[in-house]
Amino acid sequence: MPEINIRALAKELNLSIGTVSKALKDSYEISAETKRRVLEVAKKLHYAPNPYASSLRRKKSNTIAVVVPEVADSYFSQAIKGIEEIAQLKGYHVLVYLTYESYAREKQILDEFTNGRVDGLLISVSSETCSTGHIEALNSNKVPVVFFDRAIDETDAAKITTNDYDSGYEATRHLIERGCRKIAYLSISNLLVINTKRMMGFRNAMTDSKLHVDDNNIVNCSNDDNENNRILTEVLKQKNRADGIISSVEKLITPVYTICKQLKLQIPADLKVLCFSNLSTAHILNPSLTTITQPAFDMGKMAATVLFKAVEKRNYNWQDENLVIPSKLYIRDSTGG
Amino acid sequence: MPEINIRALAKELNLSIGTVSKALKDSYEISAETKRRVLEVAKKLHYAPNPYASSLRRKKSNTIAVVVPEVADSYFSQAIKGIEEIAQLKGYHVLVYLTYESYAREKQILDEFTNGRVDGLLISVSSETCSTGHIEALNSNKVPVVFFDRAIDETDAAKITTNDYDSGYEATRHLIERGCRKIAYLSISNLLVINTKRMMGFRNAMTDSKLHVDDNNIVNCSNDDNENNRILTEVLKQKNRADGIISSVEKLITPVYTICKQLKLQIPADLKVLCFSNLSTAHILNPSLTTITQPAFDMGKMAATVLFKAVEKRNYNWQDENLVIPSKLYIRDSTGG
Repeated sequence: MPEINIRALAKELNLSIGTVSKALKDSYEISAETKRRVLEVAKKLHYAPNPYASSLRRKKSNTIAVVVPEVADSYFSQAIKGIEEIAQLKGYHVLVYLTYESYAREKQILDEFTNGRVDGLLISVSSETCSTGHIEALNSNKVPVVFFDRAIDETDAAKITTNDYDSGYEATRHLIERGCRKIAYLSISNLLVINTKRMMGFRNAMTDSKLHVDDNNIVNCSNDDNENNRILTEVLKQKNRADGIISSVEKLITPVYTICKQLKLQIPADLKVLCFSNLSTAHILNPSLTTITQPAFDMGKMAATVLFKAVEKRNYNWQDENLVIPSKLYIRDSTGG
Repeated sequence: MPEINIRALAKELNLSIGTVSKALKDSYEISAETKRRVLEVAKKLHYAPNPYASSLRRKKSNTIAVVVPEVADSYFSQAIKGIEEIAQLKGYHVLVYLTYESYAREKQILDEFTNGRVDGLLISVSSETCSTGHIEALNSNKVPVVFFDRAIDETDAAKITTNDYDSGYEATRHLIERGCRKIAYLSISNLLVINTKRMMGFRNAMTDSKLHVDDNNIVNCSNDDNENNRILTEVLKQKNRADGIISSVEKLITPVYTICKQLKLQIPADLKVLCFSNLSTAHILNPSLTTITQPAFDMGKMAATVLFKAVEKRNYNWQDENLVIPSKLYIRDSTGG
């Protein structure tokens, strides 16, 4: 079938292009009968307006982008669900872009947004991201940016986060109360602000309890599963190994459980385990997993709400929004129930 | 900062628009020195080419869409990873759209693609989708469509699927071999072809073993967690309840385990459980979960490979591609180990 443009449609209808265009936009200048005829023929001929041309005219895409490191992590899939709920109400499309924790990929994606492809951006930065030029370029191109979860403090944009410092402190206090004295802290990035804050909470809780933090127990894992298995085996085989683990990353929980089994370490008898996680299977793991659970769905909803306000209202200083929604500790068998 | 277009950029450089345009495209007609100057000033003034205008000219977006029901399911997050791996090699952007199992939402998303927004589509249809006009409209608009996992058999498009009938049969045989005689089959949709095939495999394996399929044990669950808890409680409280469960959907495994615990049913002693699932936590659940695991990553890679071939080669009958990559049974403790 040949492509049909508005000119061909007008010819078929024996009307001017202007009349057809107004009819398609439901203009009050056009009679109901003419609109009906235009829509009927447009449908018959499979006429579809060119979205790029239309975006050029409107200067609005009715689309927002969500840029996240991955979707295998339950936090992100739940946050996206919250974002979609608000976008659906507002009649916006949501495009999800994945960076797979690569700064280069994140920059490449954002560079595409500098001129009208999307009306706004919700972002949780990659674990490699430390420079912010690619984000600031959007702000200066009037594409509002809202961070959720993984923010960059210095950047002038709205931030929807959770109480990472407090959660790190609370997690550590919980393990100490359950008798742990040597606690290992696992992360995948030293650059992420959320990690810095959680780790600071961990360190301060240790110091406040007069406990020593062994450098061998600050463990930097990677995005590679085999590499993580190797690293964790080494950590748990140490002579003076930890009696408690805080994993700041959900995906490390499978290797931790797997390697404990291999090394015949009993959780929680030999090792207590706590993870920052939104896993829906946390309570049916063997043993059930104590978690710090983030309000992922609500953070997504809140981030989207702020973004749409920024997109729709000219005199709203969205950059100043800085909302913190608290996480929650769920105590289960992996720390002694 | 005011928006800067190519006209303003040319004026600033004291060059013609044509020269600036050619310099930005790295044309051989322009000297290296001029190119350097143009890029320098373009950068200084934050000039960004309008992607819509550029797409209008090129009639190519270098973007493909991936439309899936959700990302909380491990199958989809792993398939997307496979797709991204190929897209990255080819230099394409990947846009992920979520339908949340709604046909209306799926149609609304696809209707946006009929005129140039994306170069091709990879889709796993929603559990509500039975009509296919929205997909055929893309084919007739020359946007190639490749189904992966959840396909619609009658539609003239490439299909990358797995051996759903065989897997349903194999899963059922396994439970029968482990002593099950009354097996319940759980799904979330009667419309999905993958479900029809899995269920047919289940029914035939039962019949081949001269076992009766009780209608009360063909269980249609929903997308609502509370509703599923209610349904599953009812099924497992039946007087003559099942001694084995096959869940054709990953997300039903958490409610199945949870309700077994509530009803004090021991897995596998009282009830053997098998699930179609790509859960990375399957082997650390309590008890570890026997799964039929789909080759999600490979299916994503293969679907993307076929799509890019369709986008790039004019004389390729991609519609005829119909590849079946087999799934695998992993036997664990939930069926007796």
